[in-house]
This record gives sequence, structure tokens and C-alpha cells, in this order.
Amino acid sequence: MNTPSRTPKNILVGQSGGPTAVINASLYGVIAAGHELPEVGRVYGMLGGIEGFQKGGQIDLSEVLSKADLKRLKHTPAAYLGSCRYKLPEDLTAPAYPLIFKKFAEMNIGYFLYIGGNDSMDTVSKLSRYGNQIGSDVRIIGVPKTIDNDLILTDHTPGYGSACKYVATTVREICLDSSVYHNKSVTIVELMGRHAGWITAASVLARKYEGDNPVLIYLPEADFSMELFAADIEKALQKKKNIIVCVSEGISDPEGRFICEYGNHVGTDTFGHKMLTGCGKVLEEFVRERFQIKVRSVELNVSQRCSGMIASLADIEEAARAGYAGVEAAVAGETGKMISFYRLDQSDHYQINCRFVDVDEVCNQEKIFPVEWITSHGTDIHKDFLAYVMPLIQGTPEVEMKDGLPVYCYR
Amino acid sequence: MNTPSRTPKNILVGQSGGPTAVINASLYGVIAAGHELPEVGRVYGMLGGIEGFQKGGQIDLSEVLSKADLKRLKHTPAAYLGSCRYKLPEDLTAPAYPLIFKKFAEMNIGYFLYIGGNDSMDTVSKLSRYGNQIGSDVRIIGVPKTIDNDLILTDHTPGYGSACKYVATTVREICLDSSVYHNKSVTIVELMGRHAGWITAASVLARKYEGDNPVLIYLPEADFSMELFAADIEKALQKKKNIIVCVSEGISDPEGRFICEYGNHVGTDTFGHKMLTGCGKVLEEFVRERFQIKVRSVELNVSQRCSGMIASLADIEEAARAGYAGVEAAVAGETGKMISFYRLDQSDHYQINCRFVDVDEVCNQEKIFPVEWITSHGTDIHKDFLAYVMPLIQGTPEVEMKDGLPVYCYR
Repeated sequence: MNTPSRTPKNILVGQSGGPTAVINASLYGVIAAGHELPEVGRVYGMLGGIEGFQKGGQIDLSEVLSKADLKRLKHTPAAYLGSCRYKLPEDLTAPAYPLIFKKFAEMNIGYFLYIGGNDSMDTVSKLSRYGNQIGSDVRIIGVPKTIDNDLILTDHTPGYGSACKYVATTVREICLDSSVYHNKSVTIVELMGRHAGWITAASVLARKYEGDNPVLIYLPEADFSMELFAADIEKALQKKKNIIVCVSEGISDPEGRFICEYGNHVGTDTFGHKMLTGCGKVLEEFVRERFQIKVRSVELNVSQRCSGMIASLADIEEAARAGYAGVEAAVAGETGKMISFYRLDQSDHYQINCRFVDVDEVCNQEKIFPVEWITSHGTDIHKDFLAYVMPLIQGTPEVEMKDGLPVYCYR
Repeated sequence: MNTPSRTPKNILVGQSGGPTAVINASLYGVIAAGHELPEVGRVYGMLGGIEGFQKGGQIDLSEVLSKADLKRLKHTPAAYLGSCRYKLPEDLTAPAYPLIFKKFAEMNIGYFLYIGGNDSMDTVSKLSRYGNQIGSDVRIIGVPKTIDNDLILTDHTPGYGSACKYVATTVREICLDSSVYHNKSVTIVELMGRHAGWITAASVLARKYEGDNPVLIYLPEADFSMELFAADIEKALQKKKNIIVCVSEGISDPEGRFICEYGNHVGTDTFGHKMLTGCGKVLEEFVRERFQIKVRSVELNVSQRCSGMIASLADIEEAARAGYAGVEAAVAGETGKMISFYRLDQSDHYQINCRFVDVDEVCNQEKIFPVEWITSHGTDIHKDFLAYVMPLIQGTPEVEMKDGLPVYCYR
């Protein structure tokens, strides 16, 4: 561990990857730490992630954000600084690296914080390895975020709790909506998750008692078969008139073919375009044809990652804390690390601590949903998952409102 | 006007048509009035609307709902009593009518309140006309509800304000979500409204300043042309990198063909099913093909009518008031009427009064969005609409939360 710098150095912070409800809360945490810790001078933001920064996109966050702005920022979904999906060259001798570090030097950057998911941790890894090679004293720290909860070596990721809260709340309301008519019906809710079922699993939270909707939950981690699905639906309809089914967008059959692809060779529309569709639509048509009953499909779509109104306060606070901890780690001399959450083993009182892990061990890995938490032949979720996820959705943020609508922080 | 009954008579209340966020608030208002007014004995609910009632579905609401339940009911989306889509026979000599009135007599019903939209007002009309024919003293009153805001002779309908608040909030968040990347993109948001553009028009509320997203808004009341749409998009992309377009599901071309039908002859999927799609998907493919840029479509779906978390408090209170006013009107001797909202002409302080209108004048009519509020060649909304709609989305309900999720009232 290096000793901290004696004269204050500036922070550079960036956001990368897909938006979440709390990536700005982590930015808030970074800025708050920058303002409070004596080792830090100014806080600069890179616009459009590391890609935008290389083209000159930067902003002095100590200048542009008022106290009121900062408070709003904490509750603002999506990425205030703008984002990118960009991988730095694998070859550390590429010209991008000295150019980036030259800019760091010009801006007197001592601490670079990068808030993002898997690909962003790859950026942290490459920059810190290059920094080590050239003996740079810039400390480079990753702050995790992803609604997908698929990063390893952390109990969970900031952003995941808010996605869960949104999914559970909305599915509970869709259950109410679907229950008003006497006729039998099936409602299929398609949720985010191409490879990992973490978000879809959270739909189990909508259930109020055993046997309540959603009665069937399918994750990408379990093979999906249309015939078994039909049998599941038939059985469920014997017990309940209105059935809610939650599926991950990425469910696939035992041969590895995505269910959404079943509908994708449909041909072309009026203009000769290929029409793409989700697995929810494919299953809707399948159930309609097979059972001749009322069926609809609902795709919850981007609100899963950008609803500020139905975000989790616990998630927001933890995201801010992760940002703050990132600056603390950098100031303490750490580099090439990612902040991670460690759950203290206290069964009836949830508590997490922040620690840091080697970013090289995290990046380009994927944490899938544990198979032992998938039950009832791939149609249900184990109660241990409930104990795991419940603390992550607690609390409702007090979003500033004006004229009946949320006020967010804009650049 | 008849004189009020001297001995208390019971209320029968039913819900009908599609769910909204506030149809239960009206039920709450009916129950509250039933408990408070001395002319009323018990409050019975019909289960599954007039259709379910004919099969014996009823419940004593004075028995089953605790004080805590009642409070929850006010904030619970969808229809607590269950609903139906059912038209009584046109022929008033049909056997259904004497059977219904026989049940009314057995239950000592003096007041029948029916909460619903257009078709439900048709039920109110038929029952009150039959009642008049046979000299019944049962007073029959309609309490309006529909997110579509398409009932005539009322300033607006309960349910509409909450749909507007949900749409405006969610579109504002989608705007944030779409703005994080540097690359040009088009996001198409498909909103409810087969015939009337009231809900889609509310997306204009998401805008924070002139020129802000959503930059293009298309309602069913204006003809839609793919070529003009392409020109609109091209123009918008010259000014802004990320474009949000809001469209009603029911937009159609000058020949009257729905845009969603452009994609519907696509053929069949793997199982030989006809794949149906919305106009958002059709426009998404069109823009992708034409502009070769990033495009996505988002269908907001049923949450527009069943989000309890993003409901309008003003709407909830007005819905409860309409239910209460319905009972008052019945007790005062009215029958065959619908409660309506009348806006007092005070430009800077919104205030409504409840009055009642002849239900025969309301039912089977449709109030479309005023053409003079559709501007910029069918791509924008006049500011007078903003003044009209703004009061309807004010206030946030305090929804009871448990374990991080909303607690609603269930039968």
C-alpha cells in the first residue's frame, strides 16, 4: 500500500455501461467524499465514460452542482455524466494509454473512480495495470453497478435492489389488474435478464402467500421446454382462474435456442423488415393457441432500470456508500480494486460492510443465479432467496416533486 | 325529485369495465357515505359487476372491511369487487330485469351505485328506465371511471389523472434513460388509447422546456402517414441526438388503417400462430430500416391503469368524492343520473364541483381529444391542454408499505 499524497490531488469520476436507478447515487457518494476528505482537491467528471473522456469530454463537478442539485442527483435515475459501452485496447502498449495518463497529469488527477459493471471493471483493470507499469501514482478504483447483479466477489451490486423493488411492485399490481374478471386468463410478464435470472427471481416478492401469483417463474439458468410449460399452465389453471407467469427474456430450450427466437423467423412486415419479438409474445401466442383462453403478455422494459419513483432507498444509500468508500480506498493508497459489499452474518439484522477486491478477479466473470435456489422443476424460487433479497428493497426515497412530477438533476 | 325514504334502505354497489388506479377510491367513497348518511342501512357489493350479481355474487361490505382495510382500499388499484364487460339486453321486457329487481327487493336495496365507464352507464340507463316503468323506488346512479377520459358531459373522468401522472413520470424517466449514450437514437413509446388521444397527450407533461423530449407526439385524432413521420424524425434528429416519440396505440393512416396492422400480416411463428404486434414495434422497424440508427420501442402497457405507486392523489380524492356524491344524489331522490365533474372558472385556482347529468345523454357517446389542441401538423399538443391536465396529476398518495412493497386491500 502506498502512503497517501501529502498535497491534495483531484478526483476524476466516470460512469459506464447501462443506466440504473442508483448509478448517480454512487456519483453523489464520490462527490461527497471528494468534498469532505482533505486529501482531495477538485472533483472532475468525465462525460460519456472513458470513450468520451478521450475526446475531451470533462466537467468540473465542484463548480456546476449546487447543494440542491447534489441532493437531486442522489435520486436521479440513469447516468448524469453520460455513459459508454467501450473496451480499451487489450494491448497495453497502444497509444490510448499514455494519452489518457497525460490527461490525468494535466488535470492533477490522483484518484480515478469508474462506476460501472463488468466491462467497466475491465477498464479499471487495464488502466491500473498500465499505471503500475509506468509507476504512476494515480489510484484507480471501480465502483460496481448493474441491475443484473452478475458481478462476483460482492454480496450484490448497487442497482439490483431498485430493479427488484420495481419488478416486485409492478408484478403485484399486474396481479391485481389481472384478477378483476371472472374468466380464466394467463398473463405473461417478461423481465430483464439475458443470461442471469436475478431480476426475474425478484418477482417472487410480489407473492403474498403460498400459492399466490406469480405462480410460475422461469429463469435462464433452467432449461425451458414448451411442452413442460404447457403442462405447468394446465396444472396452474386447475387451481386458479387468473395465472401470472414471470419469465426472463433470456430463457432457452435444452438445445440452447432462445425462446424469443421461436418467433423471429416470422418473416417481414409491410416494408420488408424482419420483425423481432420477445419471448413473452412467443409464449402468449403459444398459450392462446393451446388453451383457447384470454392471454396477454407484458414486457416491463427499461423502467426496470430507470424508475426513480419506485427505487429502493436501501439501494440508493448503499450505492452512495460504495462511491464514498471508493474514494476512501483510493486516498488510502489502493489501486486496481473494486468496492464490494460484504454481508455480516447476522440472521435477523441485515448489515453490510464495504471492502475491496482485486478488480482482475472480478472483470469478465459472471455470477449466475444459484441453481439450488431454483425449485419445483424450474418453475419456482427457494425461500433462501427471499431472505437474501428482502433487505435490498427496503425504504422509499423522498423524491422532490414539482407540478405533480419528479424533479431530477440534469446536465 | 322524490322525497327520501323514511326507513333506511341498503346500498348495492358494483364495479364494471377495465381497472383503473382509483375505481376502488370511488368504492371507498360510496362505503364512507353509506356509513355516514342516516338514510342508508348496510352497504352490499356485487361481485363481478351486474353479470356476477345475476349469478348470486354479493358481499356485505359493512361486515368484511375493517377500518384499516378501508384506508387501504382507497389506494388499491384495480377493482376490489371484481368487474365484468357485459351489456344488459336492449329489450326491457327481457327476464333479466324482473330478476334483478327481485334481488334488489330481497336485499332491501334503495340505492344502486354502478362505478364504470361507457358500457356501465348503459347498464345504469337500462336499469333506471326499467325501474321507472315498474314504479320501483330503487335509485340508480352511475359513478364515472375510465382512464380514457372519453365520457361526455364531465370535465374529466376519475382514473384519467392517475394514468396521466404515470405516463408523464415514466416518459420523463425514459427520456433520462435514453440520453446517456452519445450515439443518435430514437425511442418510441406506445401509450394506451385506441380511439382517443387523451392519455398519449399527457406525455407532453414530461417535457421540462420547449424543445425537450418527447419531441414528437401522435394521437389517433390526427391522420398518421409513414412518410410525414420519417420527415418529422429526420428534422428532429438534426436538433437532438436522442429522440423520444410518443404514440397512441390507435394511430391510423388517412385511409383509416391502423398502423399496428401494418405488421400484422407478418405470417406465422414456429407453431403456425399469427403474430400480433403494436404500432410501436411497427414504427421501430420502420425507423431502423430508414435511418440505420439505434431504435427501440417501449410499450407502457397495463401499468398505465393499475399503478398504485404512481397514482395522483388529486385523482384518488376526486374519485372518492364522486362515489360519495353518488350516494348523496341517490339519497336525495335522483335516479338514472351519472355524477359529473364541473370545473369552476377560476383560472389560477383549480376547483371542481360534483353535479349529476342524465345518464341517457352520456352512454354510448365518446369524447375525443379536441382537434384544436393538436398542433404542429399533428405532432404536438397545445399549451391549453397543459392548463387543463396539470391539476389532475397533483399530489402523491401515501401508500402503506410493508417489507418494502405496497400493501393493498384484497378480497
